[in-house]
Amino acid sequence: MRRLLVVLILGWWTSAAVQADEGMWLFNGLPKQDLKQKHDFEVTQDWAEHLQLASVRFNSGGSASFISSNGLVLTNHHVAADTLYKLSTAERNLAEDGYYADILEDELKAPDLELNQLVSIEDVTARVDAAVKPEMDAAEASKARQAVMSKIEQESKEKTGLRSDVVTLYGGGRYHLYRYKQYTDVRLVWAPEVQAAMFGGDADNFEYPRYCLDVTIFRVYEEGQPAKIEHFLSVNPDGAQDGDLVFVSGNPGRTQRILTAEALEYQRDHRLPDVLNLLRRKEVLMQQYALEGPEQERRGRDAMLGIQNSRKAYTGMLAGLQNPGFIEQKRSQHRQLQEAIGTEQPWQTIAEVQDRRVELKSRTGSLRGRIYGIAEDLVLMAQEDEKPSPERLREFRDSNRESFEQALFSPAPMYADLERTELADELARFVEIRGGSDPLVAKVLAGKGPRQRAADLIQQTSLFDVEARKKLAKQGLAGIRASDDPLIELAVILNEEYRQLRGISEELDEKERQAYAKITEAKFKAEGDSVYPDATFTLRLAFGPVQGYEEDGQSVPSNTTMGGAFKHQTVHDSEGAWVLPKSWMDAQDSIASSTPFNFVCTADIIGGNSGSPVVDRDGKLVGVIFDGNIQSLTGDFYYTDVQARAVAVHIASVLEALRSIYSATELVQQIGR
Amino acid sequence: MRRLLVVLILGWWTSAAVQADEGMWLFNGLPKQDLKQKHDFEVTQDWAEHLQLASVRFNSGGSASFISSNGLVLTNHHVAADTLYKLSTAERNLAEDGYYADILEDELKAPDLELNQLVSIEDVTARVDAAVKPEMDAAEASKARQAVMSKIEQESKEKTGLRSDVVTLYGGGRYHLYRYKQYTDVRLVWAPEVQAAMFGGDADNFEYPRYCLDVTIFRVYEEGQPAKIEHFLSVNPDGAQDGDLVFVSGNPGRTQRILTAEALEYQRDHRLPDVLNLLRRKEVLMQQYALEGPEQERRGRDAMLGIQNSRKAYTGMLAGLQNPGFIEQKRSQHRQLQEAIGTEQPWQTIAEVQDRRVELKSRTGSLRGRIYGIAEDLVLMAQEDEKPSPERLREFRDSNRESFEQALFSPAPMYADLERTELADELARFVEIRGGSDPLVAKVLAGKGPRQRAADLIQQTSLFDVEARKKLAKQGLAGIRASDDPLIELAVILNEEYRQLRGISEELDEKERQAYAKITEAKFKAEGDSVYPDATFTLRLAFGPVQGYEEDGQSVPSNTTMGGAFKHQTVHDSEGAWVLPKSWMDAQDSIASSTPFNFVCTADIIGGNSGSPVVDRDGKLVGVIFDGNIQSLTGDFYYTDVQARAVAVHIASVLEALRSIYSATELVQQIGR
Repeated sequence: MRRLLVVLILGWWTSAAVQADEGMWLFNGLPKQDLKQKHDFEVTQDWAEHLQLASVRFNSGGSASFISSNGLVLTNHHVAADTLYKLSTAERNLAEDGYYADILEDELKAPDLELNQLVSIEDVTARVDAAVKPEMDAAEASKARQAVMSKIEQESKEKTGLRSDVVTLYGGGRYHLYRYKQYTDVRLVWAPEVQAAMFGGDADNFEYPRYCLDVTIFRVYEEGQPAKIEHFLSVNPDGAQDGDLVFVSGNPGRTQRILTAEALEYQRDHRLPDVLNLLRRKEVLMQQYALEGPEQERRGRDAMLGIQNSRKAYTGMLAGLQNPGFIEQKRSQHRQLQEAIGTEQPWQTIAEVQDRRVELKSRTGSLRGRIYGIAEDLVLMAQEDEKPSPERLREFRDSNRESFEQALFSPAPMYADLERTELADELARFVEIRGGSDPLVAKVLAGKGPRQRAADLIQQTSLFDVEARKKLAKQGLAGIRASDDPLIELAVILNEEYRQLRGISEELDEKERQAYAKITEAKFKAEGDSVYPDATFTLRLAFGPVQGYEEDGQSVPSNTTMGGAFKHQTVHDSEGAWVLPKSWMDAQDSIASSTPFNFVCTADIIGGNSGSPVVDRDGKLVGVIFDGNIQSLTGDFYYTDVQARAVAVHIASVLEALRSIYSATELVQQIGR
Repeated sequence: MRRLLVVLILGWWTSAAVQADEGMWLFNGLPKQDLKQKHDFEVTQDWAEHLQLASVRFNSGGSASFISSNGLVLTNHHVAADTLYKLSTAERNLAEDGYYADILEDELKAPDLELNQLVSIEDVTARVDAAVKPEMDAAEASKARQAVMSKIEQESKEKTGLRSDVVTLYGGGRYHLYRYKQYTDVRLVWAPEVQAAMFGGDADNFEYPRYCLDVTIFRVYEEGQPAKIEHFLSVNPDGAQDGDLVFVSGNPGRTQRILTAEALEYQRDHRLPDVLNLLRRKEVLMQQYALEGPEQERRGRDAMLGIQNSRKAYTGMLAGLQNPGFIEQKRSQHRQLQEAIGTEQPWQTIAEVQDRRVELKSRTGSLRGRIYGIAEDLVLMAQEDEKPSPERLREFRDSNRESFEQALFSPAPMYADLERTELADELARFVEIRGGSDPLVAKVLAGKGPRQRAADLIQQTSLFDVEARKKLAKQGLAGIRASDDPLIELAVILNEEYRQLRGISEELDEKERQAYAKITEAKFKAEGDSVYPDATFTLRLAFGPVQGYEEDGQSVPSNTTMGGAFKHQTVHDSEGAWVLPKSWMDAQDSIASSTPFNFVCTADIIGGNSGSPVVDRDGKLVGVIFDGNIQSLTGDFYYTDVQARAVAVHIASVLEALRSIYSATELVQQIGR
């Protein structure tokens, strides 16, 4: 399982010469020649457009596809988990037990899900770059760039009514305007038990062979009715055979393949170790919380799965960077570019930015966790709304308000004990980062220890109540100033430091953008422009054959079967996470055991691709991406197809499970039609 | 449960005015007047000497007592766990399932346990201080001090045949020579199931009320026969009633109550957060390892329990220091002392030492884990043995050789997969600490990633074989030089850095010793010398009444009962760690349910006190310390009796369990006789 941490930062672009089936290609920059030469495949305009429009992005971090004319959407169970969790209660645990609505009336509305369908792409590089004048320093340049991007988005939104995002590509080398149709009425149709979706649990995560039914089906609605979908995928249950060329259309979250040696060193020696410390801290915290009882375990489960998944992924990423030689290789590649353009200036700038980032490690002006995030958002929104839209921090611009408010006013359940646990830990971490003698720490703690302070804040805040949030949001800055909600007061205390750090961070990002733009131009010059940009959580096409690999002298076949799941359970003595749900055991005899279950291919994917449709040459659905194997975890920094593989659920197993295990014949009949 | 991390560093001494029943008193400095005044208790020479000689130290980190004339030793299950684990195999899991030898022949010899009985104490301050000349710098002073201490120990060992340790007290204010009778033939007699010993598991750890039979019984042998013990404790099953004064005689591992404000800031902002990051890292690592299967879970269990326990303890310690006000209070207390002696010099020295320690955070010359530790010990021993004993690093001096070799040549099982997992993580951590571009990192990794390097080292080393270690040890420095064992070669690569860092560290320790010695003298002058030194994992006496406390407006009674354990199980739906073993369920009807089970008192204890006997005014055994409650976790830095309590197993429950659950009548008849 691959869970995406959507971090919308710079979009990098690869600097290594493209090899094998490397590449996360823009739909307006598909490698047609390559596909023709290597795979004898002719990309037609219709084929690509149909696939683009049948692809869906989950704003919560993941990918999906339309699979019927009446709005069915297929994604991963682990992409849906956030929603399943929000729809669950102590009495009804959908995330654990699964769900099936065999009539429309029983489909459950997700409290705050937004789905995006990419409708068009437009290059706006010239307009964005024109707004940045040569005489501007980085801070001014950053502001000017943000402003023009907001303006472009706002104009587009007003003109088309579509969600409009200017996306930074090639680390700042190109700017494209993406227009999305938004779906905000999304309902749960079917989900399997977590035991089937995550069979093998954390132990099997990132391993292969695998046996996971990591899928869930939603339906999008418009005006209270199932949406009518023109572009949806039909299915091919016989597809994805060993050696078949397949395509993955989804939203890879982030890669950092353009990074210079110094930027990679920063990742290796600072950022990744720090992220891992944070993840382990939260993992242990959530475990301790779960020990309090089964209900606590349920409440924390979704967060826990995400943390464990990220921890394993980051461990693999760090291992890739700790491998001696890789960074040196990168350095020598870039030396050639430096010679080609006759200067090292952009690289020096990037190196200086990394040094600044190291210095900033001992500062923070924010706290993690949902309830504090709400307070912080309310304070920032009130302040930002005093300015014209293009001058605001990006997430507060008018064109984004609909999505922003859906999250801020989400009625999804929150649990005071869980929020208190997290807030106490965040306050302790705040003290650790800044040091206990820091004056801001004294203000934040208000004379109490982190645990007591968190308990007081949670007990006294009104922000658990959606109506209270709406009321405060409506009152604007006057409301914030008059508020005696202690969490609002805390966010106000931290506001100055938050803004200062964000300003510095945006300035550093701008410096990097300008430097990477120069490196990009050098690359284009040296290698032509048939290169793909680093992932940016926007729609990309990847491809490659269905193909096994060698590991420890053994050959790992490309496919597993549903019958294999039962064998895998037996091998593990039906212990731990290797317990198939009762529904599977009951149906064992009626399941066609040779049905292909999971398969691997060489397509270049990364977190965010979870739920991406896998299609064949005819554009027919053959599977759903849900993981990469452990060897693929270096994909953030470099692609390899020696052992690295993308892992998918075969569509045949989805249909077989719906028919033979979940008695969802109604649903099967709609799929692909 | 409290598991001791024995870190033999400076022994600090309290700087706050002694309050309530605060104090971990030296047996040659008991607070007789205080006991008389506060508790109307007259300490006699006989009473104290008997208790001292009946007290036992586990060199593996814990306390115990003699409880029969034929060598029975009572300690905690969690103190015994290390041995239970070493005596276990895939087929016979003593740590999990318990053990009972009803005849001597079935008693199982521990592979590497050493028990110490404190026989005498002698003040050698004058001789130690005389060896340090005023003209020496810190490095010279440290060497001279180590040398004279080694010499005193060696002379004593030769003269008396007893283990002889010079103990640094009051942070360097006093030096006492402790002589111990050593017992190295220690055999397991009885242990309960871990489900009974750790009922409630990690969730209940450091909580109260508790219901744990956290005890195990060993027997010491001499010349193949049960040792004849003159001083052993008789038992009083009716003791430890609410309000009764009780005494705890054990070996608290370390407190740091003398620390100056700057030293506490270092602990709060650097050392404790770093230790916690390390502990969480190892906890997650061991969890991941345990997922590989039940045998892996068993292999890693002992380490896991220790890590979880330490993590919880350190979290509490850090919370204590993050409490605003505490350090400032300390600063103002010390300001009075500074005025009294007219200088801030010692405090400035200590502050400078902390700054140096922060600088050293980015260096390390060692790796954790058993197999690397063996390689490092072999290399260091060979080098040190080239010098006369008093000039060697302390652990390599002749007087310590017996204990040292018992550990180095222990036949306890080691597991290649577990060692590989740990070593891979340690290599990755080494890269993180020093940074991936460090030249020493390149040498250590030898061109491979941490995982591959660890796999190669573990596969190629011969050090899993005890005979290979003995052979290498015998060959001395020539053997090390000629060795092509890759782990030996690795330890040689790291040797220079290890020695340099150790030298710096000992120099800093010496600077602190001298500074704290001056502060101690000032304290003695200001407050008289009836103060106790910080804990040093040497025998101390603590005391206080059996007493409940208030928590969240509820009153927590001092005692629980054996019947309460069954109720506690029911409250938790017999889930998770709240499952009593089968033996208890089978015997439920025959257990006297009102038997007192666990109790709390205000005695001042800390990790290392685990297994300490609790005795009444008559010196009779009434219980065994096994934990502190969560409020006591600040005890490293300050004592309070508002809510902080020591938690003990009542001796009545031990006898009742042996009789009614474990059918150990043979054993019961020997106890106290």
